[in-house]
Amino acid sequence: MTRWPLPEPMRLAFEEAQFAADAGEVPIGAVIVKDGKVIAAAHNQPRKLCDPTAHAEVLAIRAAAGALGQERLEGCDLWVSLEPCAMCAGAIAHARIARVYYAASDPKGGAVEHGARVFEQPTCLHRPEVYSGMGEDEAAEMLRQFFRERR
Amino acid sequence: MTRWPLPEPMRLAFEEAQFAADAGEVPIGAVIVKDGKVIAAAHNQPRKLCDPTAHAEVLAIRAAAGALGQERLEGCDLWVSLEPCAMCAGAIAHARIARVYYAASDPKGGAVEHGARVFEQPTCLHRPEVYSGMGEDEAAEMLRQFFRERR
Repeated sequence: MTRWPLPEPMRLAFEEAQFAADAGEVPIGAVIVKDGKVIAAAHNQPRKLCDPTAHAEVLAIRAAAGALGQERLEGCDLWVSLEPCAMCAGAIAHARIARVYYAASDPKGGAVEHGARVFEQPTCLHRPEVYSGMGEDEAAEMLRQFFRERR
Repeated sequence: MTRWPLPEPMRLAFEEAQFAADAGEVPIGAVIVKDGKVIAAAHNQPRKLCDPTAHAEVLAIRAAAGALGQERLEGCDLWVSLEPCAMCAGAIAHARIARVYYAASDPKGGAVEHGARVFEQPTCLHRPEVYSGMGEDEAAEMLRQFFRERR
């Protein structure tokens, strides 16, 4: 039996998550795609950057917006290894990201299908299409292993 | 009758908001105080920076964390002219800001007393003390004037 392969942007997001783990940061990675082309890839690095906002999604959004020279990322897709938190979901809405694909869901910190459910608020100015679940076991295992090694 | 003066950090936040308006950005300003000293001040500038995450609060948090060389801002207070959105409330929680003071409430985009109510979620990892209402008329009028001039 051959396992269905992960879509390439999610594979890259996992690669980014591994870079984070290698650097001692919580392993989460994100990639932004526009017209089939990767325009930004980033991993979680609040410690290294001394920046509590330096989540993978925020860094990828900032890089993509900088690369395009515009504050909105209409028509762009964001691929991320974990369900975004409230901060990142808010950033995704502000950026007008068209589609969000995430691997593992996050009952503790997620704010898409848990907690603040940012995109479900009547006041949310932009709701991306959201797809989840691909590669969730692998993404969750990467996080479990990271925290296991640090206990 | 003499009007009770605004606390100095809020006056500075309003000054920052005016810098934003002068630059054609939505007038919102934020200041971070630690041990009675202003350690960061910023205004909203997503357009100039081509960065949808460049809200006053996020920029102030990033500047303060950079200045202190740490990702958490324990013991710091954030003063901002408008109720923080979901992204900024999430950033405030991640940064472990001790107290948040905001002027005007924001029924459309706010996520403290409206919408996602980020700090009220059982999964919210850190809840700052929140104080609101000081200078709200002035802050709201600055925003109304900005949008009136652009209509």
